[in-house]
Amino acid sequence: MSLFKRKVTVYTPVNNVDLGPSSNEFYLEANVKAPRMAGILVKIFSHFLECPIIGTLLLYILKGNNLIHKLITNADFNEPPLYVPLHHFEDIKEQEVKSLDSSSSPPEKAQLAIDCLPIPSDENLNETTPFCRWTIMDYSKAYSSGSITPYQVAERFITAVDESGKPPLKMGFFIKYNADDILRQANDSTIRYQSGKPLSVLDGILVAIKDEIDCLPYPTTGGTKWLHNERHCRDDACCVERLRSCGVILVGKTNMHELGAGTSGINPHYGPARNPYDRNKISGGSSSGSAAVVSAGLCPIALGVDGGGSVRMPASLCGVVGLKPTFARIPHAGVLPLNWTVGMVGILAGTVEDALIAYAAISGEIPSYHPSETPSKINLPLLSMTKSIPGIRLAKYGKWFDDCSDDVRTCCSKALHKLQESYAWKVIDVTIPEIEAMRLAHYITIGSECSTLLDPLKEKNFAELGWDVRVAQCIYGAFSSMEYIKAQRMRNRQLQFHMKILAEADVIVSPTAGVTAYPIKDDALKTGELDYVNGAALVRFAVAGNFLGLPAVTVPVGFDKSGLPIGLQFIGRPWSEATLMHLAYAVQDLCMSENKKPEVYYDLLRSSKEEQ
Amino acid sequence: MSLFKRKVTVYTPVNNVDLGPSSNEFYLEANVKAPRMAGILVKIFSHFLECPIIGTLLLYILKGNNLIHKLITNADFNEPPLYVPLHHFEDIKEQEVKSLDSSSSPPEKAQLAIDCLPIPSDENLNETTPFCRWTIMDYSKAYSSGSITPYQVAERFITAVDESGKPPLKMGFFIKYNADDILRQANDSTIRYQSGKPLSVLDGILVAIKDEIDCLPYPTTGGTKWLHNERHCRDDACCVERLRSCGVILVGKTNMHELGAGTSGINPHYGPARNPYDRNKISGGSSSGSAAVVSAGLCPIALGVDGGGSVRMPASLCGVVGLKPTFARIPHAGVLPLNWTVGMVGILAGTVEDALIAYAAISGEIPSYHPSETPSKINLPLLSMTKSIPGIRLAKYGKWFDDCSDDVRTCCSKALHKLQESYAWKVIDVTIPEIEAMRLAHYITIGSECSTLLDPLKEKNFAELGWDVRVAQCIYGAFSSMEYIKAQRMRNRQLQFHMKILAEADVIVSPTAGVTAYPIKDDALKTGELDYVNGAALVRFAVAGNFLGLPAVTVPVGFDKSGLPIGLQFIGRPWSEATLMHLAYAVQDLCMSENKKPEVYYDLLRSSKEEQ
Repeated sequence: MSLFKRKVTVYTPVNNVDLGPSSNEFYLEANVKAPRMAGILVKIFSHFLECPIIGTLLLYILKGNNLIHKLITNADFNEPPLYVPLHHFEDIKEQEVKSLDSSSSPPEKAQLAIDCLPIPSDENLNETTPFCRWTIMDYSKAYSSGSITPYQVAERFITAVDESGKPPLKMGFFIKYNADDILRQANDSTIRYQSGKPLSVLDGILVAIKDEIDCLPYPTTGGTKWLHNERHCRDDACCVERLRSCGVILVGKTNMHELGAGTSGINPHYGPARNPYDRNKISGGSSSGSAAVVSAGLCPIALGVDGGGSVRMPASLCGVVGLKPTFARIPHAGVLPLNWTVGMVGILAGTVEDALIAYAAISGEIPSYHPSETPSKINLPLLSMTKSIPGIRLAKYGKWFDDCSDDVRTCCSKALHKLQESYAWKVIDVTIPEIEAMRLAHYITIGSECSTLLDPLKEKNFAELGWDVRVAQCIYGAFSSMEYIKAQRMRNRQLQFHMKILAEADVIVSPTAGVTAYPIKDDALKTGELDYVNGAALVRFAVAGNFLGLPAVTVPVGFDKSGLPIGLQFIGRPWSEATLMHLAYAVQDLCMSENKKPEVYYDLLRSSKEEQ
Repeated sequence: MSLFKRKVTVYTPVNNVDLGPSSNEFYLEANVKAPRMAGILVKIFSHFLECPIIGTLLLYILKGNNLIHKLITNADFNEPPLYVPLHHFEDIKEQEVKSLDSSSSPPEKAQLAIDCLPIPSDENLNETTPFCRWTIMDYSKAYSSGSITPYQVAERFITAVDESGKPPLKMGFFIKYNADDILRQANDSTIRYQSGKPLSVLDGILVAIKDEIDCLPYPTTGGTKWLHNERHCRDDACCVERLRSCGVILVGKTNMHELGAGTSGINPHYGPARNPYDRNKISGGSSSGSAAVVSAGLCPIALGVDGGGSVRMPASLCGVVGLKPTFARIPHAGVLPLNWTVGMVGILAGTVEDALIAYAAISGEIPSYHPSETPSKINLPLLSMTKSIPGIRLAKYGKWFDDCSDDVRTCCSKALHKLQESYAWKVIDVTIPEIEAMRLAHYITIGSECSTLLDPLKEKNFAELGWDVRVAQCIYGAFSSMEYIKAQRMRNRQLQFHMKILAEADVIVSPTAGVTAYPIKDDALKTGELDYVNGAALVRFAVAGNFLGLPAVTVPVGFDKSGLPIGLQFIGRPWSEATLMHLAYAVQDLCMSENKKPEVYYDLLRSSKEEQ
């Protein structure tokens, strides 16, 4: 039977795999064999891939070259498939947290988050540190004191965004924003403050939404030129509705990598979302605009969606905080179903405190078809109690941690040392096996799910996709049901590994992305680019958060030699967001003094102060 | 883009579909376009399918002809995929039940089931009805009274099975049985009765196990010639272990359709499992031997596995009771993972009472990777309280119900009328939409999962598979990840339809199989046969039980003109096995007087009475 001749990779039973530091598990560096392609090259490649027979052959070779055949297709697993990374909700015991009832209203939840915040020791904190973005509390106090109104801030926001979108900046922050709608909301908010009845601490706060999430009155393009014509946005997504009920000003839909099918954030239709720290560099994807607007000071918080690091990567590249909660913690209703089992709404924020407030406001799953219990409680970290909770154990897989650029490695290692010194946290050396196989299994999964959604719409709209996404879609559509199911068996296997490690440690620590923001090259502007080597480096540390549904947070820890931000990531146990935010807060406190102001920055609040 | 040119089937949103009797939903009769193939024809077909390019083309045409392209591949769904039919456990309120703690021991559970049984009104029940198989209670009383010992019954069993396996009968009941092991267990049981300490009412009861379930000291062949060499049976499956702890005598591994990949039960390696009512007819599959041994009086109960009606179909064709519980009610540990999301251990029994005792003994899921709560309670029907519980509403979809042979339709309709008359149960006319699409979605699912398991073992062993299963495996292996995911979207859709119908009715009623046992033709003996028309008729009513994880029961209601059994099926709400058994008991009571003795029958207990 020559049809089936091949070598079968047999994985060791999970319980026989040594997860300790001296395990003989081999660390496989991402072996991506694909040259960077953009411009005419990617067009030609796409045409070949779309040819019936040549395309099939090409895809076969591509999969083989990139170890998909070896690590997934031709592999044998002991584990049953795990299709959805739902975690049994347990009322886990976390240190120094406040539990809130999942059924409270969003304004109530936001208020409870405020009660968790540290009392500022110094009113002029922003004066003494080199650079700090204005926080929700800064805005809220300014609004309450009447030193500025939401309307005034909104006006400045519109001026700033208008300016940023034009030459010479052409920042590509937004796909769509509507000045009238923004001012109307700002006016309502201003009136509420004037009558002394703000809806919550979030009243009047500017919030940007990734264009993958429904938010009236905007269409949801998913970064395409056409998807909103096929799927109409008729309502706010559940998470947006919750924010709106807190009184926020929804300022528009941020730019993103088209269909979330890439990590650069270079969108050929709406222009690249540029990095505020260097406008010639990418902001990372796919929630590129959401990260960039927070970084540039335009909004204290923004929402993104994280299906393969798509919140954490751009957060890291743009020097802001990114939080991806546990799978099913935040309702998915009203989010483009580009994938069903790996994607999650996530939060981008200037500070951990602001991420906490937004998290509290939008958390709490709505009943769905999932048979898991809806978590009845949400823990919030009592950041007010202490700078760091004691006895934290950080699992570190050295070979993986170090598989990044020199600057990233140096910076993250330094931060980790500081944490150990300052807080007496303990680093536990571990081995996380088969990380590259997990990345490929996740790739098969997200690709298959994305392709399933687009399939009925393809015939009509395929030619309107960017060239890089056309290639991605060809690859995505070529997986067999067997490859999909085997990927789910790898998911089960990896969840077991991670849960074993997280039984011995509180979190897994790693860099957030393997590289810092890289240049936006001219040839990519119109076609997008295929850069699987940089793509793999960006996604390297993100996968467990999506594929296994684990919560994860990234927090800025420094800058590379060119002044581009670097993030450190913590991956936690299911439902342990409070612990993650505690840790992120401790890191933030430790690294804040090294913070830098981006090249493109709008100080919407301070300029107002100066005026008065 | 000629590559994608095709017509997209757009399904109506679930809430806009009328499920009432005058719905304009079209009932699509199974449109299977494939001639029956066996002998040399199936060999040639298999060779063509296994050719790289011709095979791909053939498969494409086959899928198109059989509406897979139209109803699944090229369809657009609104629903997210539902991968695993796990149901949230609710402590549902059922009438006249006894609740038992899921953590009780199997002997305790069996005893609680006994307490639910009706007290026999007439000690000589078996004398007054035309025919009734000996029950667990009959054996138990005989053992306790000393009128016969388990050892004597075991000896008779061995003689009977030896005889049945040889010409002229060649019944093909078992793949393997070991006389020494049976007698050893029987001896132990006999000693326990002699010392007045039977382990439970099941002590000394002969139980046969489908060769898909691990049971020491036997290999688990799955009906193949080789699978046991690749996957060694090292322990009893959990359900077998539970029965063993009750003192049963495990009498061997029953014949099955190879790999469960068919419905006829014609196994080219171990001979067809013949129908005790007519040895020239099939017993149905894939749990063919388990149904046949219960039908032939060799065991009061047997275990099967039901991935696509594989317990209920042969039960119906062999005139016995078949129970497939809710997904995850019975542990799957130790069952061949031929599929993960549709298969379930099921029970074959001579009577509803015996099914109840076996059900009690083996129920209760063990903790697994599933995030659903383990049901903490199991309801057992208090059959002692009343013949029928009042006010039952039976949902009937007329066009579907009638889509079967004349004899099946007449017999099942008659039974349904009797039920309405005798118990004042109410029939509610409904429409279940897209049943044929659900059958195809289930086919893609079970095929993809089966193919995933076998894939790593194929190269070495493919040539040893029967020809019909080789063809099945070629088809199974040809589904894309997109087709698999779309099938899961159909699963979600169908679950919503069924739950809506089951909110208005207690159960859905239908025939169990569309045809009665059909002839075993000579040309199929060595190659197996492809008979997709009969296959579709057999599976027509079974799919919801597997694809949606709903519990279902079949109970004999009569015979066709040739004297072959016919079964009636009830499909219930999740976790409502007690209601199903109540209903089945009422049907059994009503139809018992029409029962007939099979052509091949072994009266292991009576002959002993005559001796004394």
